[in-house]
Parts: sequence; C-alpha cells; structure tokens
Amino acid sequence: MTRRPRLITLASDIGSAYAAQMKAVLAHRLRPGHVIDLSHDLRPHAVGEAAFLLRAMAIGFPAGTVHVAVVDPGVGGRRAPIAIECADGSSLVGPDNGVLIPLAEALGRPRAYRIDPMKLRFPARVGRTFDGRDLFAPAAARLAEGTPARDLGPRIRPHHYEIPAPHRTRVGARGEVLHVDHFGNLVTNVPTGWIPRGRGRIAVRLGRSGFRPFPVAPSYEGLGRGRAGVLGSSFGLLEVAVGEGSAERRFRVGVGRAVEMRWRTPGRTGDGK
Amino acid sequence: MTRRPRLITLASDIGSAYAAQMKAVLAHRLRPGHVIDLSHDLRPHAVGEAAFLLRAMAIGFPAGTVHVAVVDPGVGGRRAPIAIECADGSSLVGPDNGVLIPLAEALGRPRAYRIDPMKLRFPARVGRTFDGRDLFAPAAARLAEGTPARDLGPRIRPHHYEIPAPHRTRVGARGEVLHVDHFGNLVTNVPTGWIPRGRGRIAVRLGRSGFRPFPVAPSYEGLGRGRAGVLGSSFGLLEVAVGEGSAERRFRVGVGRAVEMRWRTPGRTGDGK
Amino acid sequence: MTRRPRLITLASDIGSAYAAQMKAVLAHRLRPGHVIDLSHDLRPHAVGEAAFLLRAMAIGFPAGTVHVAVVDPGVGGRRAPIAIECADGSSLVGPDNGVLIPLAEALGRPRAYRIDPMKLRFPARVGRTFDGRDLFAPAAARLAEGTPARDLGPRIRPHHYEIPAPHRTRVGARGEVLHVDHFGNLVTNVPTGWIPRGRGRIAVRLGRSGFRPFPVAPSYEGLGRGRAGVLGSSFGLLEVAVGEGSAERRFRVGVGRAVEMRWRTPGRTGDGK
Repeated sequence: MTRRPRLITLASDIGSAYAAQMKAVLAHRLRPGHVIDLSHDLRPHAVGEAAFLLRAMAIGFPAGTVHVAVVDPGVGGRRAPIAIECADGSSLVGPDNGVLIPLAEALGRPRAYRIDPMKLRFPARVGRTFDGRDLFAPAAARLAEGTPARDLGPRIRPHHYEIPAPHRTRVGARGEVLHVDHFGNLVTNVPTGWIPRGRGRIAVRLGRSGFRPFPVAPSYEGLGRGRAGVLGSSFGLLEVAVGEGSAERRFRVGVGRAVEMRWRTPGRTGDGK
Repeated sequence: MTRRPRLITLASDIGSAYAAQMKAVLAHRLRPGHVIDLSHDLRPHAVGEAAFLLRAMAIGFPAGTVHVAVVDPGVGGRRAPIAIECADGSSLVGPDNGVLIPLAEALGRPRAYRIDPMKLRFPARVGRTFDGRDLFAPAAARLAEGTPARDLGPRIRPHHYEIPAPHRTRVGARGEVLHVDHFGNLVTNVPTGWIPRGRGRIAVRLGRSGFRPFPVAPSYEGLGRGRAGVLGSSFGLLEVAVGEGSAERRFRVGVGRAVEMRWRTPGRTGDGK
Repeated sequence: MTRRPRLITLASDIGSAYAAQMKAVLAHRLRPGHVIDLSHDLRPHAVGEAAFLLRAMAIGFPAGTVHVAVVDPGVGGRRAPIAIECADGSSLVGPDNGVLIPLAEALGRPRAYRIDPMKLRFPARVGRTFDGRDLFAPAAARLAEGTPARDLGPRIRPHHYEIPAPHRTRVGARGEVLHVDHFGNLVTNVPTGWIPRGRGRIAVRLGRSGFRPFPVAPSYEGLGRGRAGVLGSSFGLLEVAVGEGSAERRFRVGVGRAVEMRWRTPGRTGDGK
C-alpha cells in the first residue's frame, strides 16, 4: 500500500454526469491527477465497438495502469463484474460481456477474477443499475493501491469476444465497419496493408449498395474536400472517409455493416501478391 | 496557505471551451491534478435539473472539496455570486439561483456569503457574461488554498430551492421527471422504496398520456431490448427506461413533466403497506 | 530534465476517443495531472474558429505551458508539423495551418520550428492520419521536459493567419461571426467597446437578411427569455444572443457570415465619437 498509486483510466458510454460519480469514489483513494478520462461518449450499449476502441485507447498507456470500462447493457443481470490482470501488470475492470477481452489479449496472459462485492469494503450498493460507481470504481481503487486482483474474488473464465475478422477474397477483401469515428469516418476491419502497394483506386461496396469506385488517398487532404475515398486510418485499418465531411452521413452506414473491397479485376490473377 | 490544496470540482452547462478558461485561472493557483471535471454538458439553463445532478455528482467527494457550479442564466443580473461553507468543510461556489442549495443542505449546516469581487485580487472583469471565469474560479482557488468563505464577502441568506417532492396517492404516487439522463432514461422523484416489494407490474402516466402498464424490472437486461418499464435508478429513485433505447425519444417527455404511478388497484385497500 | 514538468493543454476537434490516444503517449512522460483538456469538441475542420478559440482558452494559462492544438484537415499532406516558442516560455505544438498563430502572437515573439519526426525518439508512425498521437504528443512531451523547440527541427517561417478584422463604417461596424458558442450565441469580431456608451438599441444585419432592431442588453437576464439582442461577450466582442435560447437556431447563421451593425442613423453625424 505504500507504493506509488497507479493510473486509472475510465472509458464508458455513460456520459460525464454518471462518470463524475465514479470520480467521487476514486477521489477518496487516489492521489490527485491519477484518474484519466478516455471517453464517456462511447456509443451507448455498443459493446463490440467499445471493445475495439478500448483496446486502441488503452493499449498505449504505461504498464501497470488500471483500465475501467463501463459499457454495460447487462448491468445488474447475470453477467459478472470482473477484474483481469495482464502480463505487464496492467489491470482491467468491467463487466464480463467481452468489452475487456481484446485489450486483455493484446496486453497478454490475462487472468480473470469475478469481483465479490463483499471484498470491496465500501458502502452498500444503492441499486442494480450502476456497477461503475458501486463496484468497478471501488475495485479499481484497490487494484491501483496494489491489491492483487485475486484478492477481489474467485478466478473465472471470462466470456470470449473477438473483434470480427476480415477475409481475403479472390479479388480483394470482405469485412465490416468496426467503428464510426468522431468525424463520421467508417473504420473497417480490413488492414491497410492488404491493399497492393500503389493501387490508386478500388471498388467498395457498403452494406447492400452497389460497388463504387473510390480513390485510395494518402491523406484526407489528398482526398479533397467533399470527395469520398479510402484511407489507411490511424488504427492500421482501412477507412472510408469524405474529405472534411462525414462518410456516415453520406452513405448512412453504421457499425456492423458489411464492407466489400475489390482491388483486382475479377477473373484476373497474379496481380500484386 | 501551507496546507495541502483541496480538490476543486467543476460542473456546468457552458461546454468545454468556456470551462477551459476557468481551468486557466485555476492553473495559476492549484497544483496539477486538483481540478476535476464533473460535467460541462448539463442541460443549458436548466437550474433545477442541475441542482439535482450537482448533489448526486458532488455528494460522494471527500470532505473539504470545493464544488463550483456554473448553470447561470442570470449571470450579470441581480442574482448574487455566492460561496457556501458546509459542515464537513466542503465549500460550494456559484450563482445564488438555487443550483447549490440541495447539495449544501445534504452536506449540512450551510453558511452562505456573497462574493465581493474586490476581495479576489484578480484581473478585472471583461464582461458581465462569464462569472465562472471572472468570479467563481478565482473565489474557488482562494477557498482551495484555505481562505475561509467569510473572507470573500458578507454573510447572506441564499435563495431557497427545493427539489420537487413526490406525493403518495391512495393507489400509488404522483411526481415528476427530475432528470433525463445520458441514455434517455426518465429519472423521477419517486423513491424506489415506495413500490411495494414484489410488485411486477404498475401503471404509469407520463404527462397527459393515458396510463400504460409497465413491468417493474430489476435491471435493464431484465427489461429486454426495446421494451419500456420502470426500474430503481442509481439515484435511489424510480426511472422509466427502454431497454438499450431511449425513453425520452419513445415518450417525448422531458424534465418537469408530471408522472403518475399506480401500484394498487383503485378501490382496493390493504395491499402492501 | 530534473526541473518540474510543465503543464500541457490539449485542444482539438478529434473527439475524446482519439484524444485518449494522445494522453496515452503523454502518460509515459509527464507526471499525473499535468495534462489538461481544453476541448476535444471544436467544430470539425474549422481552423479559423479554432485559432480564435485556442487563443481565448490558452492565453490565461501560466507562462511556460505547452499548448497542443489538433484541428488539422491537412494532416499527412504538405503542411508541416510545427512547434513555436513564445516570449513567456510557453510553447505551441500543432499543424502549420494557422491554428496556432493568433495565440503565438498574443504570447509574443514567436519562433517556429518544423518538427522532424526523427528527433522524437518515439515509435514509428502507424499512418498519415493522426499526427496528434504520432508527432504532436511526443513533441509536446519533450518540450514539457525542458527540451528547447530548436532541438526538434529547423527554424521555419510559419503560414500566417489573421483573425478577420472588423471595420468601422460611417454609421456603425461591419464584421463577421467568428464563433458560435456552446449556447448558440453568435460571437462577432466587433469589439464591445465600439458601441457608443448608453446606446440601448442598434440595427443588426446577419448575412443577407434585412436590418433588425436589437436591444443592447447588459446581460442575458436583461435580454429576457426568448428575446434576441446584442451583448458584450466574455471575449470582449459583441455577440448576438437569444435569452435562454440559441441565436444560431433562430437565425440560422454560422461562422464566417457577415454581420453589419448600425448604431448611428445614416446621414447623422457627430454622434458619440
């Protein structure tokens, strides 16, 4: 308990006012400045998108950080509250609905524990609708103070969740939209590296639309204002974007929609590698 | 002045860009990490809802914290800028429009002082439209440094404000919507404990609609996706919710609208207690 | 490197989830609490409005602060990443698209340097779409640690940007809307001090509408709920506001639209000075 408290990050879909109640709990136990907001505006109830984003947001933090995720449509139901310890000493706290899993696997060697409320030594719960305040924040505070996750409850095997995988096709790739970002860019699960080098134009089908020819742009500026195209996003994945505009509004496509890309002419072979 | 600076929390309806100007003021006087954002997205000009939320957000912070609230449609007008000291050593700073009162009363033994700008030793005011930056932040900084509120101006009696009270009826309760949360849940002022234990279904009237039968769900998951019902919210109050959806959009009801609940059949007696 | 780390402020249009990735980078190098969010909800791609707001938000911070701005529609294109050192020891980091310039000039004696990625000793870049994470955050961390900006790359002359200037006319002023704030107030570039003292009513033309008579109100309260008028904003500039409402929605006017104000009767002279 005498060691330096670790950082705690908070990611949620609950909005700032509910998040404030988690910060109140943490303010009793952490030194000022040790709680970092990642986002409280994640898409409500969108567990899969949050799992993808949590990994992207949290992966770069120092080893030993405690990451709390509250995207939890099953709060108060059968899903367990869990804490996960990873290879680098980082800990993850949240619901056992998959939201923590991609980050846990990226951090390596996850060991999960079911949080037992009796072990938190904290005021009793007010309801069954806000575990972020009533369970996750107290649990995170204890982990940040140095308590090992195994002291919070029994070891369990968490529910699995996998970010949807893209597939190579004979002429390109088939995937889906993982995330619609703040600008309305449609971030797919197709790795940027899959497009053969130097390809300046590909055909893209969003959902059930027909294939459209899109330029492959090196940057938003290269795309040009108001023009749609494909770029390598900062996630290392291809995104559909509109220069200084919103691809989400232009194409009315959201998370989970199928995306098909063609960079080879059907019937042609041996193009690229 | 040598004692450890206290935490300052900021709650407002002014948005992040104006709040940033308050943080600039505070950065001169507080050590890094001592300023905590509660929310800057409170509903604009909604003093009553903010008073309710401020109490919920701030009540859990450590004794001695300085809470600043800027929901202030009367800025620059006749309402006074005030600082309130409470029993536990916490201080509240904001306009004398009622927004601080429910929190002050919950913290106990409030003593209020009118902030005299001449006592702040801070750059003169630029206008009459942003007391958050020009008065409240400087006042909060002084309180955080240990200055007693009585040094900021004369003692006054603040305007009263009471969160609207619910009423028991012969067959249930009558209240109103206090808060529409980030998810669109309609948080009422009717205590969760008022529903007789085990009641699985009640009748609810929102505004001037007819009574609708709603399940009483133990959790959002118990409600089921897209279904409307009543739950015990994390505020200890009943809320009308739609599973993974927005009750606000479904019922087009906002803050202040009347809510009537029936859990006993009219004409029947002796049911529950 | 042994001196106390300086504060870093972050202002952007990228939303909280992307900003979180910048905080991850900074968490490795700064002590807890030293990173302050100004706003991550600036209007997307609105460089001019951001330049105005950045100056307003950042100007009040202590000397020596490092201000990072990411409003960067040209990311990955020809515009350079730059760092600017100012007279008071403050540093600015962002794209060379003008967003930093008004703040730099207000802080005084700006010297700009093109950031050379090779000098950052940081993981290679993932793409060309997020310099905030890949270049600006690492550069800001080094500046905060005490590295002089000249060590980050060669001296350059940054692109100029000037906040549009208002003009006096024979009967009043002509300017434009610089900023639409969180409440929908239309902040113009016409200084509050230009209106002759005591003028209770002026004529205002927004865009191509006709002139409308507007009261000059001392405060929002003085305006009255739902009524439009002109006030001295907290920026020291005149704004068009609607009491407890949104002038943006009322008048459907946005950033860059022309504003003309008349406080003298055409043909009359010698009124005020």
